[in-house]
Amino acid sequence: MIQAKGYAAQSPETDLAPWNFERRDVGPHDVQIEILYCGVCHSDLHQIKNDWFPGIFPMVPGHEIVGRVIRTGDHVKKFKTGDLAGVGCMVDSCQECENCKAGLEQYCLEGNTQTYNGLGRDGVPTYGGYSNTIIVREEFVLHVSGKLSLAATAPLLCAGITTYSPLRHWKVGKGHKLAVLGLGGLGHMAVKFGVAFGAEVTVLSTSPSKEEAAKALGAHRFVVTSDPEQLAAVTGTFDFILDTVSAKHDMDMYLALLKTDGTHICVGVPAEGIAFQAFSLLGGRKSVAGSGIGGIPETQEMLDFCAEHNIVSEIEMIDINDITSAYERMLKGDVRYRFVIDMATLK
Amino acid sequence: MIQAKGYAAQSPETDLAPWNFERRDVGPHDVQIEILYCGVCHSDLHQIKNDWFPGIFPMVPGHEIVGRVIRTGDHVKKFKTGDLAGVGCMVDSCQECENCKAGLEQYCLEGNTQTYNGLGRDGVPTYGGYSNTIIVREEFVLHVSGKLSLAATAPLLCAGITTYSPLRHWKVGKGHKLAVLGLGGLGHMAVKFGVAFGAEVTVLSTSPSKEEAAKALGAHRFVVTSDPEQLAAVTGTFDFILDTVSAKHDMDMYLALLKTDGTHICVGVPAEGIAFQAFSLLGGRKSVAGSGIGGIPETQEMLDFCAEHNIVSEIEMIDINDITSAYERMLKGDVRYRFVIDMATLK
Repeated sequence: MIQAKGYAAQSPETDLAPWNFERRDVGPHDVQIEILYCGVCHSDLHQIKNDWFPGIFPMVPGHEIVGRVIRTGDHVKKFKTGDLAGVGCMVDSCQECENCKAGLEQYCLEGNTQTYNGLGRDGVPTYGGYSNTIIVREEFVLHVSGKLSLAATAPLLCAGITTYSPLRHWKVGKGHKLAVLGLGGLGHMAVKFGVAFGAEVTVLSTSPSKEEAAKALGAHRFVVTSDPEQLAAVTGTFDFILDTVSAKHDMDMYLALLKTDGTHICVGVPAEGIAFQAFSLLGGRKSVAGSGIGGIPETQEMLDFCAEHNIVSEIEMIDINDITSAYERMLKGDVRYRFVIDMATLK
Repeated sequence: MIQAKGYAAQSPETDLAPWNFERRDVGPHDVQIEILYCGVCHSDLHQIKNDWFPGIFPMVPGHEIVGRVIRTGDHVKKFKTGDLAGVGCMVDSCQECENCKAGLEQYCLEGNTQTYNGLGRDGVPTYGGYSNTIIVREEFVLHVSGKLSLAATAPLLCAGITTYSPLRHWKVGKGHKLAVLGLGGLGHMAVKFGVAFGAEVTVLSTSPSKEEAAKALGAHRFVVTSDPEQLAAVTGTFDFILDTVSAKHDMDMYLALLKTDGTHICVGVPAEGIAFQAFSLLGGRKSVAGSGIGGIPETQEMLDFCAEHNIVSEIEMIDINDITSAYERMLKGDVRYRFVIDMATLK
């Protein structure tokens, strides 16, 4: 076994704290990565607090991982020692079902193996990226370009692909009006991708104070949803809403902003669920859709697209021992737009 | 003005009873129809009881109208006296917005004019088909074939088009597995259309007793959703669910039955709204969509399709003075599958 160190929650009631643990040895198809940076996703906090479902403890969160390959198994073909590498939300899947074969491992019919708070196919709990090292089978390791900031690349592995994938799936681009709901880790990436794909991007927000920041990210328009006049002006105008909000929100209000045949795409997970009136859909043949991360081929495509178009996440780097205060700030929305842990601070 | 007679609810608290009222004179673009049959839609009851929104009283329900043209305005081109004619859920729209121009009058951006419980463009309340006659502008009058039973054709004007339209829009057909939820007025038409379009049709029901009837309508499979084994066997198997249920139901359970990228299409309107967990969508890039009736060109297409393929509604004919007991039976699901009022019984 390989000795690893990281930060773990021992239970939903405790803060993250240093924890030493074991990872599996490097198998013939495995890649061992020295973790350099790990993004801090809102879902990390949801999971250590059991907001969605009972978790597996101790829990080492983190699924926005960038690092360097330090060992490879005998049969590994895609990576060699010294390569830059990324790991996102999944570390395994059955690889045999129709979804896996279609490159949709996130929808593996047997269930994919989450990077943390999951059970590996060997029945052993998985531990995530708030850690010095990780061992992952090569099919789930991504190539990362050295052209961009590695720290700012880390959030692409979740926040990036989670917004890139639905925009690609629904072919959002030139001629479309796209609204982005929630200007956090996911939302700010949605703005960047929407703009890069040629859509007219509007940020919907309750806070007028975010306008400057939204425009700085490339958004063409900014609408304060608490202002009835601004809201009326965009009623029935959007082809798509990309909804990154994971708190309860008024779906009927947002559905009214869609055009006939418009689609409201949810990528956030409000613990309370999603609720609306049937007429909000029936009145314009509208849809509420959901999308979860992206498959491995598409994640690589997204990383390559970002390298080519110079797209990274806006980040604030933190020491791992400041993680609890970072969570507190994240809860208040006080981060532009993603905390990334500098793993050199894990002693 | 034209003297008309019908059955009206004077308030949400009172039963339907005979009522004499006036309709507008036949204008240059209007068609006057002697109503022969009118279907009884569950939404008639919802509306006279103010289940969805405050109604306009007195209210004459009825939007599944078949009859004969008895007068035409000077500029009417499509109809002549003696023609068979149908009227559905709408009697007007702006006819100028992009949706109207696209033949999607049901999604008129100014709002269409409902056949009853609406206000006409002249500000006068509309009164529906539980009546001896109706005056409608010709653009909203449909041609009805004499090849089929006229009484059994009436429900096509709402139950028919409401299920035909989404199946056509989402291109449901050969190679698709379609589940139909709710085997009532809408559901039984969804089965007939799904089969006619070449889909493999499964009826989902809580009552094992409906299996024979479902198969008689052409359904290929029948699943009792209260049986965990039967439910497990169809988990993740449907491309589409057409959901005709207007009572509260467990959306998460049904969403689990969809394949990856599957679509749950709601055409019923539960007063409580629609609610589910975000993971039910995100776990398979699924969609919940809504669809309302259909546009005028598509309604004519549907009627022509039905005439060609010998498709009508299964009906039970009633006297109009039995309408209150028919409502009671409808509430208990005790109708196969649509009551139709024989307007000859309106004295």
